[in-house]
Amino acid sequence: MILQLEKSIDTNQKEQLIKDLQKFTKSVNEVQTQKGFYLVALEKNNIDIRDIGQLPGVKDVHVVSDNYQLVSKKWKVNPAQIHLKDGSVISQNDFSIMAGPCSIESEEQVDSVIAHLVENNVKIMRGGVYKPRSSPYSFRGLGMEGLKMWYKKAKAAGILIITEVMQLSQVEEMYDFIDIYQVGARNTQNFNLLDELGKVDKPVMIKRGVSGTIEELLYSAEYVFSGGNENLILCERGIRTFENMTRNTLDINAIPVLKDKTHLPVIIDPSHGIGIRKFVEPVALAGIMAGADGVIFELHPDPETAMSDGQQSLYFEESAAMIRKMNMAYELRGEMN
Amino acid sequence: MILQLEKSIDTNQKEQLIKDLQKFTKSVNEVQTQKGFYLVALEKNNIDIRDIGQLPGVKDVHVVSDNYQLVSKKWKVNPAQIHLKDGSVISQNDFSIMAGPCSIESEEQVDSVIAHLVENNVKIMRGGVYKPRSSPYSFRGLGMEGLKMWYKKAKAAGILIITEVMQLSQVEEMYDFIDIYQVGARNTQNFNLLDELGKVDKPVMIKRGVSGTIEELLYSAEYVFSGGNENLILCERGIRTFENMTRNTLDINAIPVLKDKTHLPVIIDPSHGIGIRKFVEPVALAGIMAGADGVIFELHPDPETAMSDGQQSLYFEESAAMIRKMNMAYELRGEMN
Amino acid sequence: MILQLEKSIDTNQKEQLIKDLQKFTKSVNEVQTQKGFYLVALEKNNIDIRDIGQLPGVKDVHVVSDNYQLVSKKWKVNPAQIHLKDGSVISQNDFSIMAGPCSIESEEQVDSVIAHLVENNVKIMRGGVYKPRSSPYSFRGLGMEGLKMWYKKAKAAGILIITEVMQLSQVEEMYDFIDIYQVGARNTQNFNLLDELGKVDKPVMIKRGVSGTIEELLYSAEYVFSGGNENLILCERGIRTFENMTRNTLDINAIPVLKDKTHLPVIIDPSHGIGIRKFVEPVALAGIMAGADGVIFELHPDPETAMSDGQQSLYFEESAAMIRKMNMAYELRGEMN
Amino acid sequence: MILQLEKSIDTNQKEQLIKDLQKFTKSVNEVQTQKGFYLVALEKNNIDIRDIGQLPGVKDVHVVSDNYQLVSKKWKVNPAQIHLKDGSVISQNDFSIMAGPCSIESEEQVDSVIAHLVENNVKIMRGGVYKPRSSPYSFRGLGMEGLKMWYKKAKAAGILIITEVMQLSQVEEMYDFIDIYQVGARNTQNFNLLDELGKVDKPVMIKRGVSGTIEELLYSAEYVFSGGNENLILCERGIRTFENMTRNTLDINAIPVLKDKTHLPVIIDPSHGIGIRKFVEPVALAGIMAGADGVIFELHPDPETAMSDGQQSLYFEESAAMIRKMNMAYELRGEMN
Repeated sequence: MILQLEKSIDTNQKEQLIKDLQKFTKSVNEVQTQKGFYLVALEKNNIDIRDIGQLPGVKDVHVVSDNYQLVSKKWKVNPAQIHLKDGSVISQNDFSIMAGPCSIESEEQVDSVIAHLVENNVKIMRGGVYKPRSSPYSFRGLGMEGLKMWYKKAKAAGILIITEVMQLSQVEEMYDFIDIYQVGARNTQNFNLLDELGKVDKPVMIKRGVSGTIEELLYSAEYVFSGGNENLILCERGIRTFENMTRNTLDINAIPVLKDKTHLPVIIDPSHGIGIRKFVEPVALAGIMAGADGVIFELHPDPETAMSDGQQSLYFEESAAMIRKMNMAYELRGEMN
Repeated sequence: MILQLEKSIDTNQKEQLIKDLQKFTKSVNEVQTQKGFYLVALEKNNIDIRDIGQLPGVKDVHVVSDNYQLVSKKWKVNPAQIHLKDGSVISQNDFSIMAGPCSIESEEQVDSVIAHLVENNVKIMRGGVYKPRSSPYSFRGLGMEGLKMWYKKAKAAGILIITEVMQLSQVEEMYDFIDIYQVGARNTQNFNLLDELGKVDKPVMIKRGVSGTIEELLYSAEYVFSGGNENLILCERGIRTFENMTRNTLDINAIPVLKDKTHLPVIIDPSHGIGIRKFVEPVALAGIMAGADGVIFELHPDPETAMSDGQQSLYFEESAAMIRKMNMAYELRGEMN
Repeated sequence: MILQLEKSIDTNQKEQLIKDLQKFTKSVNEVQTQKGFYLVALEKNNIDIRDIGQLPGVKDVHVVSDNYQLVSKKWKVNPAQIHLKDGSVISQNDFSIMAGPCSIESEEQVDSVIAHLVENNVKIMRGGVYKPRSSPYSFRGLGMEGLKMWYKKAKAAGILIITEVMQLSQVEEMYDFIDIYQVGARNTQNFNLLDELGKVDKPVMIKRGVSGTIEELLYSAEYVFSGGNENLILCERGIRTFENMTRNTLDINAIPVLKDKTHLPVIIDPSHGIGIRKFVEPVALAGIMAGADGVIFELHPDPETAMSDGQQSLYFEESAAMIRKMNMAYELRGEMN
Repeated sequence: MILQLEKSIDTNQKEQLIKDLQKFTKSVNEVQTQKGFYLVALEKNNIDIRDIGQLPGVKDVHVVSDNYQLVSKKWKVNPAQIHLKDGSVISQNDFSIMAGPCSIESEEQVDSVIAHLVENNVKIMRGGVYKPRSSPYSFRGLGMEGLKMWYKKAKAAGILIITEVMQLSQVEEMYDFIDIYQVGARNTQNFNLLDELGKVDKPVMIKRGVSGTIEELLYSAEYVFSGGNENLILCERGIRTFENMTRNTLDINAIPVLKDKTHLPVIIDPSHGIGIRKFVEPVALAGIMAGADGVIFELHPDPETAMSDGQQSLYFEESAAMIRKMNMAYELRGEMN
């Protein structure tokens, strides 16, 4: 149950209201986001919702039958709008492309990728500076130094940055240099990290866990939203299955389901989703036709020498062709409806 | 290793050849299909393939690095052509639609579906007369009587029939009344049934197993092909995953992978794949964009009263809209390449 | 809902009863097994069960809250007793060992295994004469000829035979030569085969499907039981998971769950369960401690040359040691309770 | 490849050695633990290992064929000994029991549990003060205040503490109040947390990921070990499978596999593993018979009112009975070998 309060309500009235609510609810959580103040309450059985609507200070009450509340479409029917600093918007009514290398590796690499993105009209660049790696002996990223180098070049070219944040201290550290925080598939249920990201006002893209369910992804988004940050993007990036001819199994089914359940935009990552360069394009196009609001994919000036994920990174000419086809597919989807 | 033989070869020469092959191979299998005679041999290590090419009676030798052989694209580069009796073709160069109810239930139901298919230019009707059901107490289909009733009506309307065959004796029993045998997801590895279907000349569509891998599906096709029947169609119908917001997980990734590995046409079943009516269309369109050569889906004149799978069967108006959009998507895919 | 009928009931009375039941039930199935005659009915909501108990001819009514009925412990509290022709019993109150090679290969092999079993007091020999194989080019078993050879030797030594049946025609073909039919993991949901096995009076051991749930296994048993054969044994043989250091994942958890749900005996197959010779013993002992009523395992006179599954077959000395330890573990379990 | 160095080596010689190694290796990592100094190097192909053994300062070289190195049994054949402050040891040669509630809830609860543990001779108490919860609205633990209260009581009773650490800052915060850090199943691949735990000298127990492989668990241990902390314990706690009659699937197979691969002790958590109170005992006993070096399980003075995991927490009388039987099972395992 979500309560929106009268704007005129003062602190004493609010405290009184929370007291009043105790006889109708099992718990009450205060949520202050960039866009509003809400009370999220777990109602007791067999109460009359009209009794709550009549409490002083309550503007509106929504009973949400899902276990997650604030991210549910049953509460907010209109798509969330994630505004970026260049004026663009990520939402269920828009189509966004994010591309870049798996890892930020060098100045030359960044220059080369930025030139390609500018040429192909892509506004958001992905790239890792902290890399989660199964083995401690693998390359683990250039860290903040790499991010700062990248930031300078991206800013000069008018390109926005999305990058993975892996621990609490990085949230603040990265703040001035990035546009979207990415929560990776191994951190989908790193609840302390989600709490911390609830405290900032920059957009956060949460990837579905490696074997995570759709509901778990929605709950993780609920963490950040109830922590205070409404600027959320969800990302389907492939789940673990028994199939070993592909790296993961991009779950196309999650796209229409998520768009039915939540007001948040849904992006797909076909690169990690299937994990094999020559198959990235067909699954990307498939995802768009299934309703994806954007695609994040990996490319590299020279995939064969990439420090990570080279086998799933596109060559520039493949990237250019895929961008053209993705726009065609998105356009067709618009014509169909 | 696949050997094609000279047409002029006689029985004695063939026997001599098989003897000659023994020093180069671990096993030799004779395969006689509708289209040719082949020897499939498992070669020993470190042999010189040219020694085999020079044996009397050998026209051509292909070393196939996949474990499956006859269904591999490494052997047959050109797409297989599955010819149906109305002159139409199922192949990687064509697009086919098959639609109908989960179960054949009554004359009225069949009449109604056929009228809808004719109106929407669909040539192949699906429907079950023998139903695999988890519980022995569930409805198990109308059997041969239902099939004969259906056949009369379909024939009159110029509609072809695809239906599931569950056991060996049904192969012959059904032969005169159907156009395509379907092997269901629970029988993908029913090897005796696959052997039996190798002996007939009608097309066979094999569904991927409920938790089956892509390679297991290709092996199952290899069973039928090596048994003598080249007329094979593969079908991706969703795999079991941890996700419980959908019935199964249609594996979109399997489509480009299969089309890369085999010359056989690849059909998708979005109805079983996702299992929820309102999500069937987006995953069907996604599958086409990923490269599917056809779609098989469930519809019903009145899904709420269907004897099985009502929750994933489309209403006629939904079916008509989806058919229109599927054709648009297939057309766009053609324009892209 | 299961109805037991008065012994004195005649055909007319029975037909009348089935008619009378129509207003209380959605469906009624007649079940005639070796041990009794039952009606299994799906009751309508909100009926008064006492109205059914009072119908003429009804001796007893059991409402079973599980979806499966006849195999449920909620109906039959006492463990089922599976009697074998040598007077031994398989049940939840006994402990059975079955051992033998994956495939029956030769007279020498059978002689050697039988000698080992006799020496170690094992009464039931396993072995495949029809082998389900992923690839059509693999060794597929010696067939009926092999079974007859084996039967002669086993009979002479007082050893019983369990072997896999793969198709309907084999049920009758094998009948005279075997003591227990085994339904393999790929045929757990081969419903026609289960129907056929319901018609014979010999014990049937059903393996859980490769990715099958416990409930699906119970339903498969319900098929055979409702078809008329009460002599059922269940077998946990490992499920498919993401773990690739083992062949399958023997699901130890299924053992106490199954023993809680059903009155049928529960056997484990550690050989297929873990698939690596040196780990067979610890998981076998674990299974016994978890409550298994028996163990079926693979051994071979010379595992390195076995035609199938050599890597999981025990050497004779390992087998002898494991048999000794299994008996110790079973004894301890008895002392604990 | 792991290099142990001469004790007499000085800093200059070490730097020279690392330079010398460059022509033989792709990377060199310095590892300083409580027990020694090592270089872990990834060797180039086709080098002669004797050339490395002859370099000045090298005492010993071990080529480890596993991808993980320091935790491999191929390097260290003798079981690791994890010493606790009460003089007890956790290792592959010992048997340890850890028990307690899911969450620390109140003084009364802690008093009651401690009394039970003392009575049953259990030396290590588990309990959560920071709880990872899917929903942000669930109870999330008493935090540091709860830990301090618990610590006082445990210390007075001579009981040791194991509790879950969820984020970097908690590592230092908790240090004075705990005896073993637990890394939960959702943090198995929280690499920053693992790095931080490499810097402390207290034992760390790492749980296998919810859908993690055995190799991933070993890699996570390698993170902590290579970070400097050798005091490691592994814990199998059940993986996610399709089975829904149990909460998770305790993977009994992982136990013998882990004990074959690593020198670290292997503990099982049957409570999370199967997740249903009445089935905890049989799977715990099974785990011991499969080779587990210890068991961690949940109990509660009044499971019906527990704030979390009540359905899998044992009543005290069940706990006492299980402890007695676990010791019997461990004793039998000793007699067998």
